[in-house]
Amino acid sequence: MKIARVRLKENSMETYGLVSEDGQKIITKEQIHEETGIPVPPRIKEFLFGGWLEEVKKVGKDLEFKLPLSKVELLAPLPNPPKIICLAFNYYDHARDAGLTPSEEPVIFLKPRTALNSPLGDVISPSYVKRLDYEAELAVVMGSRVKKIAEEDSLNAVFGYMIFHDVSARDIQFRDKQFTRGKSIDTFAPCGPWITTKDEIPDPQNLRITTKVNGETRQNSSSSKMVIPIRKIISSLSNLITMEPGDIISTGTPAGVAMSMKEPRYLKHDDVVEISIEGLGTIQNRILFD
Amino acid sequence: MKIARVRLKENSMETYGLVSEDGQKIITKEQIHEETGIPVPPRIKEFLFGGWLEEVKKVGKDLEFKLPLSKVELLAPLPNPPKIICLAFNYYDHARDAGLTPSEEPVIFLKPRTALNSPLGDVISPSYVKRLDYEAELAVVMGSRVKKIAEEDSLNAVFGYMIFHDVSARDIQFRDKQFTRGKSIDTFAPCGPWITTKDEIPDPQNLRITTKVNGETRQNSSSSKMVIPIRKIISSLSNLITMEPGDIISTGTPAGVAMSMKEPRYLKHDDVVEISIEGLGTIQNRILFD
Repeated sequence: MKIARVRLKENSMETYGLVSEDGQKIITKEQIHEETGIPVPPRIKEFLFGGWLEEVKKVGKDLEFKLPLSKVELLAPLPNPPKIICLAFNYYDHARDAGLTPSEEPVIFLKPRTALNSPLGDVISPSYVKRLDYEAELAVVMGSRVKKIAEEDSLNAVFGYMIFHDVSARDIQFRDKQFTRGKSIDTFAPCGPWITTKDEIPDPQNLRITTKVNGETRQNSSSSKMVIPIRKIISSLSNLITMEPGDIISTGTPAGVAMSMKEPRYLKHDDVVEISIEGLGTIQNRILFD
Repeated sequence: MKIARVRLKENSMETYGLVSEDGQKIITKEQIHEETGIPVPPRIKEFLFGGWLEEVKKVGKDLEFKLPLSKVELLAPLPNPPKIICLAFNYYDHARDAGLTPSEEPVIFLKPRTALNSPLGDVISPSYVKRLDYEAELAVVMGSRVKKIAEEDSLNAVFGYMIFHDVSARDIQFRDKQFTRGKSIDTFAPCGPWITTKDEIPDPQNLRITTKVNGETRQNSSSSKMVIPIRKIISSLSNLITMEPGDIISTGTPAGVAMSMKEPRYLKHDDVVEISIEGLGTIQNRILFD
């Protein structure tokens, strides 16, 4: 199933709902309640992690997706994740381009929730940033609270997957050496377009990931090229850090970012970055300088 | 005023309350309600940032602090801060010891809420960490939502101050180069003992900060030695990142950490770290290896 958080264009009301198989229509929580009588909760977090999806699945085949997606504005699926953990250099090709040997343990930084942006939202960068870069990433959404979970069990703790755009101001990132500030700017974490439950993604380590800038392909890789696979990322992090439902773990970007080009073509005002991941949909962000 | 979050030893109930001037007694929210009739809210976050403190202040002189602090267990004052932002190398003496020139803009990393620990809580480190270090820090608790706030106005957005212990596994921190993972381990962020409102701290840039390990003084400095003062930290960060009520900004540690000693004396099993900041109280953490 695909669960989206949306704002109705008609009346600006925020709600959430299920998106149809083809990604063209949605049934909102109000419509689910009306059709099925299931008293789905007001907030998406309770819906996702409170067992409601199972209730809805029971009647799932009969759900009628009524609303065309064009009638809603898609929002970041989780407005307030407990943590947003991002991995640095977790693709062989990206690490090689940067002249680095990848680490055996996940090297991480965190993004603040204030950086979250909707899947079609504008990225707004300070004007003094001269080296603004895109990073297409496969993100895991955690489904349960776990500590010290074994690799072979860790995918059971996953709720689903989505696309994550780890927008990066390279000027700040490399001046600071700590990556956090240059990646924590408001609007620098578009994600979505919705959360796809893990049952729809039989092998998360075999998904095509592509990025286009103004229609030109820049990243074209596969999650098969991750250095540390998802099951190990979760297990390894959970040895140190309690994982909670709603945590987002963004698993790093493959080769093809601007900074690794011989003549880097950083993002400019009005550029459009489009990121697609197999089975998860597409997000698209226009770049604006403030 | 000093606001603490506590668990009653009698019945394990979690609540919050106001701590007396001398730090010896507390009046819980239930007692405040009983004594004053003010319908104080169930959660400390609403109490702090919903204007309730003003209501209570009106009758403040008559409040009777009934419960000895020995009857409660102090908890981390905020269980779920929107962000925990920490500064790297923000004291002249600490940066000098590390052979670094301090940055003009705040270099930051984030800690996850799962690292939070109570002011007297045990720090539990993985056994393979060989270079575990203490860092005493003055933390700011934000009181309002601000973006692009000027330096001269930024202290108005502060709610209060508390002590923050930025426990650091140097092995992981310097192997990763990114500081986040080695500082994000569960229990690695003790703080408190309570939040002291800013009206009680006339000059946050002139507070004595001391750390003792097993009674021996290791850090003995003053917040006057910060490279970037609090008003500038908030203003500068708010140019990039929206600050929210409850955000914790920990302002960096002064000289005297173990890693800067000629023969570093890292923390060992059963060591006790005691951190005091003038006007804010004392926190104390026993070190255990898992």
